[in-house]
Amino acid sequence: MRLYEYTMAPNPRRVRVFLSEKGIQVPTVQVDIAKAENREPEFLAKNPLGTLPVLELDDGTYLAESMSICRYFEELQPDPPLFGTGARERALVDMWHRRMEIEVFLPIAGCFRNTHDFFKGRLPQVPEYGEVCKQTANKRLAWLDDVLADREFIAGDRYTIADITPMVAIDFGRITDIRIQPEQKNLARWHQAVSNRPSARA
Amino acid sequence: MRLYEYTMAPNPRRVRVFLSEKGIQVPTVQVDIAKAENREPEFLAKNPLGTLPVLELDDGTYLAESMSICRYFEELQPDPPLFGTGARERALVDMWHRRMEIEVFLPIAGCFRNTHDFFKGRLPQVPEYGEVCKQTANKRLAWLDDVLADREFIAGDRYTIADITPMVAIDFGRITDIRIQPEQKNLARWHQAVSNRPSARA
Repeated sequence: MRLYEYTMAPNPRRVRVFLSEKGIQVPTVQVDIAKAENREPEFLAKNPLGTLPVLELDDGTYLAESMSICRYFEELQPDPPLFGTGARERALVDMWHRRMEIEVFLPIAGCFRNTHDFFKGRLPQVPEYGEVCKQTANKRLAWLDDVLADREFIAGDRYTIADITPMVAIDFGRITDIRIQPEQKNLARWHQAVSNRPSARA
Repeated sequence: MRLYEYTMAPNPRRVRVFLSEKGIQVPTVQVDIAKAENREPEFLAKNPLGTLPVLELDDGTYLAESMSICRYFEELQPDPPLFGTGARERALVDMWHRRMEIEVFLPIAGCFRNTHDFFKGRLPQVPEYGEVCKQTANKRLAWLDDVLADREFIAGDRYTIADITPMVAIDFGRITDIRIQPEQKNLARWHQAVSNRPSARA
């Protein structure tokens, strides 16, 4: 098994944090997005969409998509459970995780893609849309602060995948100056707690 | 159990198709998005984000997010399996499904949100970004046509959740004139096949 990833990108970080929480070690291969190595034929043969991370299984299958890779490891090694236990809890963790992807990760990524120099010439950028994304992201951080008023973690009283995605997204948001605001005390408390876990440095 | 949904919207349709494939019947309550009923306090008490569908469980829990609802029913009634069976296959179905959401559903929805009159005054629209989404969606349909050259369904030889999302997305794309092109024979063959299933009319 081998994980093709890139240390600087947010999606591979989600998998690294997840694996660290599980205590699973997988050999990694760096694919440098900044040098467009993910657009070279050798990598496109593994994942035609050119996205990272990609997990190479022992049978030669390539599994792309960070969340699909995490789900795969959750099945191989259920403890500690990071997607919840039992049908009801798993569905609620999934709901919270999707909210984190759609409401937090997507607007932060949309701001980066549409305003940052990194994507200049790589993608058609629409800076006006990037600004809409930034406003949306800032509104969602205020909402998330409210959500965290009565709970320790995003999906309840246990650390789950629904904490990994917003931590990675919020840390990534700094590049485009999307930040937790001083009055967002619940969000700041949660961010401190998840950032203090050893997995945050994975 | 009760499903709050809206017949005209694409996300609730994903759940209806899924339930039809499973042969599960759930009483439904219509929440009229066109009349902004999903923005009224009564509905926001069920789902503060105002999105549909929402499943009310028998214990009073509200479960939002169409895919979380589908996963919940998949656990309650595994047959027929629509998320795959076994860790490896489930991960690959999940990968294909995420690709359908990110590469197909998102750009089609992005085009609608940013160009269609329905969202005028409801959301800050950036028509230029809507056009970028349309171009992306059209490229992805060409890619999907290639994907389907050697397989019957999106994730392989069995109908799964990875077929439901792009069928719903492509049908929704017609509103903004995103369509399967005449030369996309594999995609057209697949679309015909999934549309001929009784679940497509759910």
